[in-house]
Amino acid sequence: MPEMRLNLITRDWVIIATERARKPEDFRRRRDRKALPEYLESCPFCPGNEYKTPDEIMRIPDNGGWIVRVIPNKFAELYSEGESIRKREGLKHLITGIGSHEVIIESPSHNTPTALFSVDDIANIIKAYKRRFIDIYNNPLIKHVIIFKNQGEASGTSIVHPHSQVIGTPVTPFQVRDRVSEARRFFDNTGECLMCATLKDELSDGRRIILNTEHFVTFIPYAALSPFHTWIFPKRHDAAFGDIQDIEISDLAYNLKEILSRLYFGLDNPDFNFVIRSESLKESGSEYFHWYLSIVPRLAQSSGFQLGSGIYTNPSVPEEIAGFLRKVKS
Amino acid sequence: MPEMRLNLITRDWVIIATERARKPEDFRRRRDRKALPEYLESCPFCPGNEYKTPDEIMRIPDNGGWIVRVIPNKFAELYSEGESIRKREGLKHLITGIGSHEVIIESPSHNTPTALFSVDDIANIIKAYKRRFIDIYNNPLIKHVIIFKNQGEASGTSIVHPHSQVIGTPVTPFQVRDRVSEARRFFDNTGECLMCATLKDELSDGRRIILNTEHFVTFIPYAALSPFHTWIFPKRHDAAFGDIQDIEISDLAYNLKEILSRLYFGLDNPDFNFVIRSESLKESGSEYFHWYLSIVPRLAQSSGFQLGSGIYTNPSVPEEIAGFLRKVKS
Repeated sequence: MPEMRLNLITRDWVIIATERARKPEDFRRRRDRKALPEYLESCPFCPGNEYKTPDEIMRIPDNGGWIVRVIPNKFAELYSEGESIRKREGLKHLITGIGSHEVIIESPSHNTPTALFSVDDIANIIKAYKRRFIDIYNNPLIKHVIIFKNQGEASGTSIVHPHSQVIGTPVTPFQVRDRVSEARRFFDNTGECLMCATLKDELSDGRRIILNTEHFVTFIPYAALSPFHTWIFPKRHDAAFGDIQDIEISDLAYNLKEILSRLYFGLDNPDFNFVIRSESLKESGSEYFHWYLSIVPRLAQSSGFQLGSGIYTNPSVPEEIAGFLRKVKS
Repeated sequence: MPEMRLNLITRDWVIIATERARKPEDFRRRRDRKALPEYLESCPFCPGNEYKTPDEIMRIPDNGGWIVRVIPNKFAELYSEGESIRKREGLKHLITGIGSHEVIIESPSHNTPTALFSVDDIANIIKAYKRRFIDIYNNPLIKHVIIFKNQGEASGTSIVHPHSQVIGTPVTPFQVRDRVSEARRFFDNTGECLMCATLKDELSDGRRIILNTEHFVTFIPYAALSPFHTWIFPKRHDAAFGDIQDIEISDLAYNLKEILSRLYFGLDNPDFNFVIRSESLKESGSEYFHWYLSIVPRLAQSSGFQLGSGIYTNPSVPEEIAGFLRKVKS
């Protein structure tokens, strides 16, 4: 019989199709992929083409040839220039689209997927995330910052050169506000941070753990919303990603490298998104929210049932997915 | 400059990329489609193959050759047999997957898309929706009923024969509960039903209206979540779809036929979902919720930004989409 599991953090019900679940290896899809060049003259993210991008915001290292480079998004969803105005007319509420939208070019190499980077390379990307996260929150117009990555067409991008994005919005998104508010309710009722409690629960159960390092735990959520949906939780309670320390950055880089490369080898380079879920920097002292990183391989289409109810259907068993990923050689 | 519009009913912010929006006709995608047969021997939904499906639940007309046929889904997401049990162990909340999952075969014809049905044919489908909606709510285990349609691969289905689905869940989905609760807050604050107020607002503005008939209004929401996202609202306030009257069924069928066929001819048969959003039949007297039908053509992939924030990006201008659809010949 299928079971419905409750994801307490996202507040979603998930139907786990236990009997008809596909095996983890069945999600592997061998695809014909064109061999990509290491350098592409027409790619604005490739070295030598820096003049094709808007003015650089930062690079790592600070001087000389770059390993990581941050630029404004030429096709920004929200503009950084202009007046931030709220208008209300009857039921129509509007905010002018002021915010920020940056691209983090993760590597000079056009054709190396992030999964095959070294741990040090990934640590540099996370350092860039941290600097941009803090800097963007210094703009008083920005209420929320989202760091995310799209890889592959099913993830919503057509750009191949490895990159992440950071968007600062002039309003706290409802989804974020609702989750924070539910986490607060949990804290007020139990005296515990929901994410700290989840981590304790997952570690004592053990069946869904993939990696357990000094500072982070990588695991498949009990109520994973989709096949191979994976969370990386910091062990130290902290509401905002911007507080991450250097030693934690190295360990997060290790966890991210490991899980991305296990997905790469286990599923043959699937399309995926990842996103850092964090409180605002202003709320970094919050006892009831706890930042984390969520990885969502894009292996299936949502249907009208999910659109119309918010209930997810996961045709895989989280415990089996974790068992599979523990064994994949990276 | 882009603008962020608030969708008061779904509680989502939408970035409308005003300057860089694509023109409505740019969403038309000519695709090579295989010619499909009117009858397929291997299709369990084709006439003559009735023995391949689980036992029929109802048909229209009641006797003789059918125009519409309702059957249990052979690959049900939730099972109709078994014990409904809730378990809780630490943070793990579980409900056994008991509910109902039915398929509404919309026509004996294998290859006619719903958009090309007659208004009478569509009225028969809506009559079947109504009967199943009421009947399923009579099962005390069912807390919520979702009627939806997936058409085309991007909508999450691989089945071609025109069909809709009805799922009854053993719990009210969070998304539904949250929207009802926000609608109630609006009602308590203003004394008005949010949907009645939205309808009044849209009709007095007029720019997003596509059809305005005796009992229904078809329009593009002010904060449409995606290109060609369309709502059909009944003019008469009613919380639950199950209360729809015969004369309203004919008029809803006309609206649905018109909009589906304008999408069909205007965009060359796009993949889409539609869903009926309704309160439970037990709450059909509610003053603060109002059922409606939502159509979502699947024209783009969501990205990590949407996953991570719940903010939608709509690369089209709702007023232009409505203008385009008003002119398409159906």
